[in-house]
Amino acid sequence: MYYIKITMLKITFIGAGNVATHLALAFSKNKNILIEKIYSQNIENAMSLVQKIKQGEATNSLDFEKSEANIFIIAIKDDAFEDIFKKLKVKKETIILHTSGSHSLQILEGISENIGVFYPLQTFSKDKEIDFSSINICLEANNIKVLKIITDLNNELSANAVFLDSAQRKVLHISAVFSCNFVNHLWALSEKYLENHSIAFDLLAPLLKETLQKALSISPQKSQTGPAQRNDTKMIEKHLDLLNENQNMKNIYQILTESIIKNR
Amino acid sequence: MYYIKITMLKITFIGAGNVATHLALAFSKNKNILIEKIYSQNIENAMSLVQKIKQGEATNSLDFEKSEANIFIIAIKDDAFEDIFKKLKVKKETIILHTSGSHSLQILEGISENIGVFYPLQTFSKDKEIDFSSINICLEANNIKVLKIITDLNNELSANAVFLDSAQRKVLHISAVFSCNFVNHLWALSEKYLENHSIAFDLLAPLLKETLQKALSISPQKSQTGPAQRNDTKMIEKHLDLLNENQNMKNIYQILTESIIKNR
Repeated sequence: MYYIKITMLKITFIGAGNVATHLALAFSKNKNILIEKIYSQNIENAMSLVQKIKQGEATNSLDFEKSEANIFIIAIKDDAFEDIFKKLKVKKETIILHTSGSHSLQILEGISENIGVFYPLQTFSKDKEIDFSSINICLEANNIKVLKIITDLNNELSANAVFLDSAQRKVLHISAVFSCNFVNHLWALSEKYLENHSIAFDLLAPLLKETLQKALSISPQKSQTGPAQRNDTKMIEKHLDLLNENQNMKNIYQILTESIIKNR
Repeated sequence: MYYIKITMLKITFIGAGNVATHLALAFSKNKNILIEKIYSQNIENAMSLVQKIKQGEATNSLDFEKSEANIFIIAIKDDAFEDIFKKLKVKKETIILHTSGSHSLQILEGISENIGVFYPLQTFSKDKEIDFSSINICLEANNIKVLKIITDLNNELSANAVFLDSAQRKVLHISAVFSCNFVNHLWALSEKYLENHSIAFDLLAPLLKETLQKALSISPQKSQTGPAQRNDTKMIEKHLDLLNENQNMKNIYQILTESIIKNR
């Protein structure tokens, strides 16, 4: 007969935004995890998250030298790291994780000996619950002990673990900007342009779904279509002509058309 | 008791490519529709489509003055219209439709007195069957008689009819280039960039699906996120720096970031 010793993971969250909220909510349902504290500069945000997860304590102090938490998860805006680090005080043996796609693991050196990254590759909305079982979480650690802990945390969420180093994570982050932020902007430009001509953006919905499905099943490089892919210069000229009413869209049309032609 | 007189629609397809194939396949299953002929410059293409739909006759002649078809559907590449029109001979009272998003209705004037547009707003793949019931078809006609016929044709496919004039259809076509062709290219650039760093494009799949779902449920203009939307100049600078290895992606990053910032 085996007895498996389960260590209770005591977590403190630095940050109470979208990522912290969704992670805290998911972890709070797990009996092997206890959320000790939620820090936010604005204590009301921390308090509201404590209420949501029904455990832990809100704080706006960053002095954790007497804390019993063994894991700190830093889930704040990328440009807030510096300010937080100036004030953050933790025991040297504490495990410190951050959830950022763009910051390296090394940014945590000097704060603790045990550092790691726990980056859920998803866009979070405040009010929409996340199904972590369909999410990839990018993991990185500076030693085996931390690697074991973040792998456990990942498993508690039933998420898909992806091991990437900091350089790869940055590449992934830039790709997400292209594939999501920029893609959404092209949709936003289309929406506005269609609205100006009394056409609903919704009309494109079946086309957008099919385009995504094709890209995921065949690969975007192989499923490229359209006038630029065919080098149909006549139609490209016509389109550019019609876009004289919108110089911004015309510039974007030109640069993306050139890029498609170059990459054929 | 009512007797409803159902007129048999006799259709000839000019063209045997993707759009003609999918429309002919769908129409061939309908007992009120008979496909008379399939024209293709290369008669083997026409023959192979005739085999697929198990009706009609293949031809590579454009002289239809003795044809019994009452509807001609021109489903060819946009740049082939001129050549076809030089040779096409039909009776003046025939109904002529084209399936192009970019050509105006008026391009058919002079060929017949009864002209219309039947533009299925979808991207067609040769081997993947299309469910027309989830597709928007853009309709336009120069008289009530043609309008009635194309509405009937649309209903036979259980598709969603959208009435747009030629100017609106061109706007929709350009929007489809932005929302599908350009979007797919951003995915293709990401795929290549990720591959160069030994990362699978698939990792982004949950993020891409969520981004599309948000855009369709909230609207892309309202669901824009990312460094440009936050005007996070530090991160933008970092990304541009990392993209020095890929001048094309750097240019695209810059122009789309500027466009997002301007449109906030």
